[in-house]
Amino acid sequence: MNFSIPRPDRALAAALQHKIDHKTKPLGALGELERLALKVGLVQQSLSPRLDRPHMLVFAGDHGAAKAGVSAFPQDVTWQMVENFLAGGAAINVFARANGLALTVVDAGVAHDFGPREGLVDAKVAPGTRNYVEAAAMTPAERDEAIARGAAIARELATAGCKVVGFGEMGIGNTASASLITHHLTGAPLVDCIGRGTGLDDPGLARKRALLAQAAARAGLPARADGEHALAVLAEFGGFEIAMMSGAMLAAAEAGMVLLIDGFIVGAAFLVAARLQPAIVDYAVFCHRSAEPGHQAQLAALGGEPLIDLGLRLGEGTGAALAWPLLRAAAAFLDEMASFESAGVSEKTR
Amino acid sequence: MNFSIPRPDRALAAALQHKIDHKTKPLGALGELERLALKVGLVQQSLSPRLDRPHMLVFAGDHGAAKAGVSAFPQDVTWQMVENFLAGGAAINVFARANGLALTVVDAGVAHDFGPREGLVDAKVAPGTRNYVEAAAMTPAERDEAIARGAAIARELATAGCKVVGFGEMGIGNTASASLITHHLTGAPLVDCIGRGTGLDDPGLARKRALLAQAAARAGLPARADGEHALAVLAEFGGFEIAMMSGAMLAAAEAGMVLLIDGFIVGAAFLVAARLQPAIVDYAVFCHRSAEPGHQAQLAALGGEPLIDLGLRLGEGTGAALAWPLLRAAAAFLDEMASFESAGVSEKTR
Repeated sequence: MNFSIPRPDRALAAALQHKIDHKTKPLGALGELERLALKVGLVQQSLSPRLDRPHMLVFAGDHGAAKAGVSAFPQDVTWQMVENFLAGGAAINVFARANGLALTVVDAGVAHDFGPREGLVDAKVAPGTRNYVEAAAMTPAERDEAIARGAAIARELATAGCKVVGFGEMGIGNTASASLITHHLTGAPLVDCIGRGTGLDDPGLARKRALLAQAAARAGLPARADGEHALAVLAEFGGFEIAMMSGAMLAAAEAGMVLLIDGFIVGAAFLVAARLQPAIVDYAVFCHRSAEPGHQAQLAALGGEPLIDLGLRLGEGTGAALAWPLLRAAAAFLDEMASFESAGVSEKTR
Repeated sequence: MNFSIPRPDRALAAALQHKIDHKTKPLGALGELERLALKVGLVQQSLSPRLDRPHMLVFAGDHGAAKAGVSAFPQDVTWQMVENFLAGGAAINVFARANGLALTVVDAGVAHDFGPREGLVDAKVAPGTRNYVEAAAMTPAERDEAIARGAAIARELATAGCKVVGFGEMGIGNTASASLITHHLTGAPLVDCIGRGTGLDDPGLARKRALLAQAAARAGLPARADGEHALAVLAEFGGFEIAMMSGAMLAAAEAGMVLLIDGFIVGAAFLVAARLQPAIVDYAVFCHRSAEPGHQAQLAALGGEPLIDLGLRLGEGTGAALAWPLLRAAAAFLDEMASFESAGVSEKTR
């Protein structure tokens, strides 16, 4: 866990704000986009930040608890959806194409043998986690391996010139995993962190709640906010895709990239990363408000305010891919818009 | 006013919903994007709607009342910002470029002689309206001319194959005009429809409120929701850019185009159009929630729910240009996403 993420130096903030304020628009008239522009400028320590080579990373993994019945869909859907990603037919493919994002799919721990495949990064730690209702989902060594592999993937992107990376995931059962992580790292009541996931009916939701309460009781971990604790919680309940995302986020921020944080499951990975390196929030853009109830607890714990709120609950990184044009627009106005002076436009008189 | 806009035939709704529901995602998981896809499919009466040749129309006009002191900026800023549009340096230029929208600037009634200019459509009705504090802003003949010229511009786009048109505006003083229109067409109290516009200070806001109350008292029109009344209100308080937008919207919907409705001022033009042809709401996408208080009254009157809410209050069509990728994504998922069957993905089991 040798990550070191500094707070971006705020010495440039005044110059960035001055540039924003002298664009040809009323003061503050671009609202949230002005705060985004400031954030990106600080991350890159530049008055003209560039969001080159935007890239989505979608991590897939299976969860032992899926077979216990925490999801509305069978576990096979994880690998079937990975095939759908590789064929270009999933929502994340469509949105990434529409918005100019490159896309890489990562097998973090799917219970399926894909063989060598074009467009798929094989970073499989194991073919799925253990069922956390009965035992820890992964060993500390597996967790650390997942984090390290995620970090390596992000560093490779940084080397290739990527300045902004979006995160997405696929894993039947992973809202349940995210619920347990969110409860333990924010202190929000477990029941408030559990939702219908891919669409559980009432009996399904009751079953999910009972299983997760059982898992939490078995592990017997407290709710705490420090980094050591986050790592313990991650091993106990995490998916490999979640652990690998945490590692990729930490390395991406360390390399000065801007992070597009999707919804509830990506948010759980980010919560782990933020407990380890709190300054990572300065590198992150919260893209959308998930319809999963536990997302609120994450946002409250991190002080995040998402860009869009469209009732999405799909995962895959779709919220990140949909919000990306807003971030791109924020960087573009900072770079390309005329100032009152350069355009010869009169300023405010009253 | 010979527009005739039918409600889109809903016979196709079931087939569209079936297509949406069988995409590889949990039922309803794309939230608002699913409702957008349905809307666009109904407008085009197609299971694979195409949003070809997306185009922003930005209408500019001057307001006699600006000289009475309803804005924080001097009136010259209208023509100076048109120059900024033509030079490509305004926010709407940046966002249209970033999101793949063509852009046309229309002189609806600016108090400035631009001469023949590349990229500027000269549709000037008069060099600015009269000051509505003292007299009606325009004659009925001027109003009808503005509507007709706007309609002609939209029909030209339709002929060129444009399927989606965004609306934007520039006109110092035009939030004041929009406030008066909104009050008279929704019945919301005038004071609730008046905001700080481009950034009035407290004395400036008080002055704007007093002037608009004076204008409303002079005209002595009731608050009513019918079409004849909307036309009377438009002539009394409208800007030429607002009247021309109303005409363009009516013709665009009549031609089967999807309309991107920006914020408060574009919303006032749309309110007039909707009072004349109520079915036009089925062709419209409310793009963003403006920080201007009167926008709420418009949305409540029309039952609109905007896609994004980012504290924008710039105008120019910037909210429409920023929200456009969401609509494009909605049409793309309907067209390009795999179904459970086509991708070989298992369906829900509980």
